[in-house]
Amino acid sequence: MSLIFRRAVEADLKAIIELLADDVLGSSREAIGGAIDARYRAAFKEIEADPKQFLCVVEDGHTREVVGTFQLTFIPGLSRGGAKRSQIEAVRVKTDRRGENIGETMFRWAIDYSREHECVLMQLTSDKRRPDAHRFYERLGFEATHEGYKLGLG
Amino acid sequence: MSLIFRRAVEADLKAIIELLADDVLGSSREAIGGAIDARYRAAFKEIEADPKQFLCVVEDGHTREVVGTFQLTFIPGLSRGGAKRSQIEAVRVKTDRRGENIGETMFRWAIDYSREHECVLMQLTSDKRRPDAHRFYERLGFEATHEGYKLGLG
Repeated sequence: MSLIFRRAVEADLKAIIELLADDVLGSSREAIGGAIDARYRAAFKEIEADPKQFLCVVEDGHTREVVGTFQLTFIPGLSRGGAKRSQIEAVRVKTDRRGENIGETMFRWAIDYSREHECVLMQLTSDKRRPDAHRFYERLGFEATHEGYKLGLG
Repeated sequence: MSLIFRRAVEADLKAIIELLADDVLGSSREAIGGAIDARYRAAFKEIEADPKQFLCVVEDGHTREVVGTFQLTFIPGLSRGGAKRSQIEAVRVKTDRRGENIGETMFRWAIDYSREHECVLMQLTSDKRRPDAHRFYERLGFEATHEGYKLGLG
């Protein structure tokens, strides 16, 4: 299978939001159907304007269908000898395309891209209600050394 | 006690690196003593040039001693309705100033600052070997809903 990795453009917004919503935990969090909410457009513009964000769209090279998405953020920091980190968030593979190793190919690509951009550490947090995702990350070499804390500011 | 919160300048680098190293886990990760390593200077310049990073230095308002540090990163994203997140990393309070509620005052300040900057979620990861830190975060209202995964790219 051939996959195409490219930076998202505004015309991808609908497909990306549908992928984010197409998920047990995501379905209650996203606003889909009808026009694209203005909050998504504003967030997209901010991501697009920031050279440290890479919002990726993954296409099937044959059908050109959008089959996955993820967002990388490069974070400069002083700790660990001035290490630059790559953080991956909002990873999704289209439901009806699971089981084809698309997720693994996406992660291998993201790891290589982060290494090429001089990141010495890659990090992510994963909801504790996603045991399948945890096995997947552990197979890729990630270690759950940290607790991931969240605080709503709403 | 009065604390001063301000953006770090290059002259603070030595004090910040000493704080990062002044820690059970940090001591083996940082290069201290002698001249400041070029990697720290390069990382500092990158943080300083990025409007989404806020590297904070906390001073005792009376003695003007640096007693704490943390780094905030604002991360735009599409998920959760285009929510902007505030991530806090590299939090340290000077060892001989612990037990004075400096850490709690720092977090209250960081939470307010993040809310003022339209973040709807604050997040952090904390090493599983820091049980005292976990109790502290939970007192502040943070919930350990996620696993924090790391992968070295060295």
